[in-house]
Amino acid sequence: MRAEGELAAARVLFYCETPMARTDIDGKYFLSYEHIHLSVRYLADRIRESGFTPDLIVAIGSGGFIPARILKTFLGVPILTVGISYYGPDHKPSAAPHAVQWIDEVEKKLAGRRVLLVDEVDDSRVTLEYCLRELLRHGPAEIAVAVLHNKRKEKKGSLPAEVRRYFAAEELNDRWICYPWDAQDITEHEKVARSGILPG
Amino acid sequence: MRAEGELAAARVLFYCETPMARTDIDGKYFLSYEHIHLSVRYLADRIRESGFTPDLIVAIGSGGFIPARILKTFLGVPILTVGISYYGPDHKPSAAPHAVQWIDEVEKKLAGRRVLLVDEVDDSRVTLEYCLRELLRHGPAEIAVAVLHNKRKEKKGSLPAEVRRYFAAEELNDRWICYPWDAQDITEHEKVARSGILPG
Repeated sequence: MRAEGELAAARVLFYCETPMARTDIDGKYFLSYEHIHLSVRYLADRIRESGFTPDLIVAIGSGGFIPARILKTFLGVPILTVGISYYGPDHKPSAAPHAVQWIDEVEKKLAGRRVLLVDEVDDSRVTLEYCLRELLRHGPAEIAVAVLHNKRKEKKGSLPAEVRRYFAAEELNDRWICYPWDAQDITEHEKVARSGILPG
Repeated sequence: MRAEGELAAARVLFYCETPMARTDIDGKYFLSYEHIHLSVRYLADRIRESGFTPDLIVAIGSGGFIPARILKTFLGVPILTVGISYYGPDHKPSAAPHAVQWIDEVEKKLAGRRVLLVDEVDDSRVTLEYCLRELLRHGPAEIAVAVLHNKRKEKKGSLPAEVRRYFAAEELNDRWICYPWDAQDITEHEKVARSGILPG
């Protein structure tokens, strides 16, 4: 596992720090919608610079929906989605991710195409690995990965060898990330996120 | 068509104006992310008040992805997606919408369920009608519609008789709506959207 992790790390080409402040209250990251949008734009610029021109985005739901939709603004390619859950029908957590939505039509569209798989965060890497292995079975020309945030931690999943490009707008420490779309009170969330306290 | 349009209007139960300012520059509406998030929260409150408790959200892609993901925060139900396009593989506009992504798994999950179909805007109503008619074939217990914005205009599509609940956070005049996720320059977009000029 350790060796595999090191190989995966060696294939990580595009870790970059965005030049924007992020706020950390009580050990949590608070990110504003504007920060998210700028992070996606930054990702799009890095993807373009790399020479990778995806034919389509595959968004991992539901966390990847918002980053993927913003990315479509900058890359101009269609979005397909796959739904992944760690919760069973009994609402209890399960050990492994399973497909909530997985699509014949998606799979038919993958053969020979350049695919960009999008999620909001690379946490344990288990979800990414699950999706990549499923999608790779359908013969894409290439699959690259783009996430807003890669958490600095030991990963339980790994990137398959076929994945040669990995883009993360930011690397963050292993803390809770408060995304704006999860806010019950968005006005308070944005106020905290914009208050500009840098992580300790 | 006219009679059908009137029937559809009579079934529209929940048109509501949100109490938030919106900005209109050069005849366009500019909406901030915070405004969108508050509109979704307002929608969620109206849906709850109506007594409708969806089992799942079906988001129309790609415009419905961001409203649907925010709505999930307030309603706590899974999101499935359908992809609709007015553009053919030749990138030329087509007369009717067609499915970009349409899913066996989705359809299997609809029978007997309470479904909330979500999109960002009810413009000509053609996309909504197409999706509603397709989804209704699979025997949901109920389908309701939720959109951020209903445009005041003559509609080319109509709501099938089975649709008894329709929620729109705001009614807008028939002008171009600049959603934040489409912004190339989000900082400028948010500045305009927050400048608080009310529509003339």
